[in-house]
Amino acid sequence: MAGIADVARAASVSKATASRALTGSGYVSEQTRARVVEAAASLGYVASTAAVSLATGRTRNIGVVMPYVSRWFFAEVLEGIQDALLRHGYDLTLYDARPGTEGRTRVFDDFLARKRFDGLIAVGLEPSDNELGRLVSIGRPVVSVVGPPSEAGVVALDDLHAARRATEHLLGLGHTRIAFLGGGGEHQAFVDATRLRGYAVTMEAAGVEPHHVPSAVSLPGGYAAAVDLLGDTRERPTAIVGTCDEVAIGAIIAARRLGIPVPSSLSVVGIDNHEYAEMFSLTTLEQSPQAQGARAAEMLLQRLREPDVPMAEVRLQATLILRSSTAPPPGVPSVAVGSAPAPR
Amino acid sequence: MAGIADVARAASVSKATASRALTGSGYVSEQTRARVVEAAASLGYVASTAAVSLATGRTRNIGVVMPYVSRWFFAEVLEGIQDALLRHGYDLTLYDARPGTEGRTRVFDDFLARKRFDGLIAVGLEPSDNELGRLVSIGRPVVSVVGPPSEAGVVALDDLHAARRATEHLLGLGHTRIAFLGGGGEHQAFVDATRLRGYAVTMEAAGVEPHHVPSAVSLPGGYAAAVDLLGDTRERPTAIVGTCDEVAIGAIIAARRLGIPVPSSLSVVGIDNHEYAEMFSLTTLEQSPQAQGARAAEMLLQRLREPDVPMAEVRLQATLILRSSTAPPPGVPSVAVGSAPAPR
Repeated sequence: MAGIADVARAASVSKATASRALTGSGYVSEQTRARVVEAAASLGYVASTAAVSLATGRTRNIGVVMPYVSRWFFAEVLEGIQDALLRHGYDLTLYDARPGTEGRTRVFDDFLARKRFDGLIAVGLEPSDNELGRLVSIGRPVVSVVGPPSEAGVVALDDLHAARRATEHLLGLGHTRIAFLGGGGEHQAFVDATRLRGYAVTMEAAGVEPHHVPSAVSLPGGYAAAVDLLGDTRERPTAIVGTCDEVAIGAIIAARRLGIPVPSSLSVVGIDNHEYAEMFSLTTLEQSPQAQGARAAEMLLQRLREPDVPMAEVRLQATLILRSSTAPPPGVPSVAVGSAPAPR
Repeated sequence: MAGIADVARAASVSKATASRALTGSGYVSEQTRARVVEAAASLGYVASTAAVSLATGRTRNIGVVMPYVSRWFFAEVLEGIQDALLRHGYDLTLYDARPGTEGRTRVFDDFLARKRFDGLIAVGLEPSDNELGRLVSIGRPVVSVVGPPSEAGVVALDDLHAARRATEHLLGLGHTRIAFLGGGGEHQAFVDATRLRGYAVTMEAAGVEPHHVPSAVSLPGGYAAAVDLLGDTRERPTAIVGTCDEVAIGAIIAARRLGIPVPSSLSVVGIDNHEYAEMFSLTTLEQSPQAQGARAAEMLLQRLREPDVPMAEVRLQATLILRSSTAPPPGVPSVAVGSAPAPR
């Protein structure tokens, strides 16, 4: 295998110059750099990354900390991050920190302390555990996807706005018995709590009472809670806001099984535009987790290039995608969708 | 921050001895090692991983190459790998190589050539592209999850057996008009081709004609193909083998939408035991992708410890999980399930 000495000889430069040209650490003229890079390519030379890291203090690697990889949102964010890092020639080390596992403890106690990365992207960490603070204290730049304002950069959906728009859409159709399905309980996530708040303030502003139905934040979770909710005909709402599309789709499957026609007897709206939303004709507020992941990666890489640029907080607004899971409530004449209140 | 010199001083040894004790490269007595490790812990010393890598030639990092992270099977395998690597103190670098993207080309051409890993796990690479061969030629041990026999180690479901069991279950209930749904076309994956073969040979052995209905291997894909298949009442089968649970569940959703009762008018069986299988009462052949990922990681780490141990090929057999999506065809009296042919 070719070594740095072979590359230096082929390019007629010193080993030190060849090394500078290939690692980007220290001045080399563009002409010389081009000659060295060409020599390295023709010899099939690949730098020892361990040696490059020692020389430059840079790993060209980004750590990604996330609690789940098997959920739609997280997997999509990961793909967006990966795409952006690939474009810039960075590796991605995955720290999969499922809540409540021994693995999560080890990730925070051992793995991250090794600092095998130039920066970190933290996806969906809960503020209650102060883990984001621990990541920031490692001393590498951190960008957070999902979550509250923090010392780290933040890229996230404007959850309050999305839930407000979903609720306003149903109020505009004439619904007043609107339930919010999902989240709650001991492990209430920041995202679901924020969406619930967006729903509740909108209901209260319209003078109608909010009704929160807790459920696990998953398709089977939404299904199970909706079977209970819709099975009781006295208490049955005419519309449901799902905290995410998976919960909303679970509610649609429950309604079908109970023989409740959607949307004529029950309207359902979600938040996400999940890959299954179209199949269930789900009206939803669209977010793009891939775009959020890519944006977080770009923000982090910019910070690595320009350490003096302050971190930003980016809140993206979701767009209402109208399909056919929402309609006026039974007995209310159809009104034009345009008459729904505009987003505030 | 404490350096190796501080650790050496606190443990009353030379820097070289302290370094050997912490990296595991070269002889140090157990007593000395314990003293150095204690000194390092009390000083909060964390070795520069770049320096450790240079000294030992080991990265304590495993690369994982997979075409998707956002599909259930791949995400589950990834969690299983991650769990096992965490237990052994290894990092995981993710190479997300979606087919047909520029990123995939770069992963194979640039990223893997850096060899920032002690070994590789390749998940779901297609033999046609000879990419597994390229990975093996990098010169690090490789274990493959999913796929044909190869020079790498293999951990995979016995796909032929799983499809045979699914088909035998339906034949045993009295079905003869059984369609196989999923896969096919230009991008036929190795897994789906093998399952189709298992179905076809079982049908032919029973003297009935196989019928393959191609579809994208996803829930919406199965749904769309099943709407077409079941909409034509003259050609309608009495039973469907889905190439995976997502395709099978798509078929159940299609049947519900068309008003075809499952299982009294249509039986459906899948392969996976996907997280949604229970919600749809799906009878299926259970595999555990997490266990496959963990087993592949263990196989790779063992190989790193004992380079002379030959790689193995492990084919896991799926178990039939009986729920309520299968029954005898219309007009056939119910028979005991035990009368289905035993697995061969």
